[in-house]
Amino acid sequence: MRTVTVGLGARAYPIHIGEGLLARADLILPHLPQRKVSVITNSTVAALYLDKFSAALRGAGVEIVPVVLPDGEEHKNWQTLNAIFDALLSNRCERKSAIIALGGGVVGDLAGFAAASYQRGVPFIQVPTTLLAQVDSSVGGKTAINHPLGKNMIGAFYQPRMVLADTAMLDTLPARELSAGLAEVIKYGLIMDLPFLGWLEANIGKLNERDPAALAYAVTRSCENKAAVVAADERETGERALLNLGHTFGHAIETGLGFGTWLHGEAVAAGTMLAARLSERMGLLTHAEVRRMADLFVRAGLPVEAPSLGQDRYLELMGHDKKVENGKLRLVLLQSLGKAYMTSDFDLRDLREVLAGTAAHV
Amino acid sequence: MRTVTVGLGARAYPIHIGEGLLARADLILPHLPQRKVSVITNSTVAALYLDKFSAALRGAGVEIVPVVLPDGEEHKNWQTLNAIFDALLSNRCERKSAIIALGGGVVGDLAGFAAASYQRGVPFIQVPTTLLAQVDSSVGGKTAINHPLGKNMIGAFYQPRMVLADTAMLDTLPARELSAGLAEVIKYGLIMDLPFLGWLEANIGKLNERDPAALAYAVTRSCENKAAVVAADERETGERALLNLGHTFGHAIETGLGFGTWLHGEAVAAGTMLAARLSERMGLLTHAEVRRMADLFVRAGLPVEAPSLGQDRYLELMGHDKKVENGKLRLVLLQSLGKAYMTSDFDLRDLREVLAGTAAHV
Repeated sequence: MRTVTVGLGARAYPIHIGEGLLARADLILPHLPQRKVSVITNSTVAALYLDKFSAALRGAGVEIVPVVLPDGEEHKNWQTLNAIFDALLSNRCERKSAIIALGGGVVGDLAGFAAASYQRGVPFIQVPTTLLAQVDSSVGGKTAINHPLGKNMIGAFYQPRMVLADTAMLDTLPARELSAGLAEVIKYGLIMDLPFLGWLEANIGKLNERDPAALAYAVTRSCENKAAVVAADERETGERALLNLGHTFGHAIETGLGFGTWLHGEAVAAGTMLAARLSERMGLLTHAEVRRMADLFVRAGLPVEAPSLGQDRYLELMGHDKKVENGKLRLVLLQSLGKAYMTSDFDLRDLREVLAGTAAHV
Repeated sequence: MRTVTVGLGARAYPIHIGEGLLARADLILPHLPQRKVSVITNSTVAALYLDKFSAALRGAGVEIVPVVLPDGEEHKNWQTLNAIFDALLSNRCERKSAIIALGGGVVGDLAGFAAASYQRGVPFIQVPTTLLAQVDSSVGGKTAINHPLGKNMIGAFYQPRMVLADTAMLDTLPARELSAGLAEVIKYGLIMDLPFLGWLEANIGKLNERDPAALAYAVTRSCENKAAVVAADERETGERALLNLGHTFGHAIETGLGFGTWLHGEAVAAGTMLAARLSERMGLLTHAEVRRMADLFVRAGLPVEAPSLGQDRYLELMGHDKKVENGKLRLVLLQSLGKAYMTSDFDLRDLREVLAGTAAHV
């Protein structure tokens, strides 16, 4: 087991990473103020892991209130959130009853926002079951639901008390979900960790084959990068925004196609390629570097061409981005491989060209 | 103008209290990170004050996005909250666009929770228009919506950047609303400020007649008391719970009768009398003291008899209270006039007697 700490002073918390941690109730117990918890999961994860996880906690004398949600990004909305509140209230969960998210990014975001809001805040623990959740969404306290007009528009910054990432659970992950998680892993290399990008290029085959040591390393290195950024800028007043490379484009893709059509990681990969092409137009990246990025995404099983929603629709959707300031779009672009920056200083014609002609560029 | 400060370190904020402050855009401007704000209000308040308030801000170059909600506690739910999010998104309000609550407790709670959640948190300002909001709900950062199973069950602790209490607005307040606000004013006297209780008994006539000096004093003294409690215990881990005298009973009344049937302050008054009668049964208050309390509430135009929902229904509703811990109800009771405490150490038979036989006690 490896442990990464998110350094947030009195609210610092551990990310435990390792095989078989799901059964380690001893790691969870110290973070429970009360021996009653609600475990929020989805139907897919419940079938695989809910019994095992619950048994471990029950064995330690913990009463479990299971809440099983439908699976998929299209359910990350108010209706599902309300179903959680209904379950918590009718089962008389209290202010000291912790909420545990057992699932991927959608479950974590929903359960986290429920934990932030139920009785104005209850203890929260993340048990991420997908690669994407283990390397990104379970760490850092961003919780949210979607709105028809925009992704993650309603939510809270609400940190968990611990994150328990059992890498053995990645064995049951569908290939498409594994790829989606790799999009966020590759992101860390691109924005801040060039050596890691090199490691990923050398080891993408092992990751695709789910080599346990390679996965454990990728998860740990990703969490170390994320923890450092979150500790420095918890509420995204500055550098944390760099973690959103490809996300302004990606959220537009997810919202434009309808939530759940593309997986978040798929939209991020294609969106990152759009950001890369804009960076190329601005003379920041060479064509060879953009190709290098595309090669890695393709090897990870990810799309590098964004769907053609139309330039105007893209711009309209991107105009709802949380980074918009005084009506001006701000984008995370690449200054070089391994170094991202945020800017509103780009030429709209360049952006339109990128949105118009993706197919020609790779 | 008097100013009370809520001492929360880097998040400390002022409560400005005085006549005619509604037009003082100069007091608001320093707290706006951007010259675009959303003003959330209800149809009743909008008819009286929205134009005047908007004009003052527009005169200072601020773009206003007005959001007018239906009036009443029965609308403090997620449907109305969603209507706010729809308006904010379709008008492209950003992370730095502040939200201003112009209204009473319902508007403040809704707008505050919207501010806490929209884009994971935007700047928030309270302009309370009712006595209840000026003396209690606009101060301290509690925001929430109701759930069919319980009052204020979903929300956030989210502090405003300033509170602007224009006491001249109390002139247009319906008498019933004025009385409801007095319930929370009297509460401060009962839980922590015996001299203020004496002042209220001497000046209740002036308050009923809306004597400006008396109202200004009552608002200021109430805010001073609340600010001291909030500064010491922002997230209600201890003494802040004492502000909930009468509220466990009161919330049961509001939920049991249906939100909006009784005003919150009315339910608090009747609920406080139930707490007083339980305190009397436990030998903490004399019968004369309980009568003294009832006299003051009656003179303030408030109910002192709770509706008969039935003992079991009361206990069921009270079991959803946020102060319940390990299934055990905790109540705020009076140790003496001017001193409240929280306890789970009471006899259920005494509580049942109080719930069963209110009419006999005063």
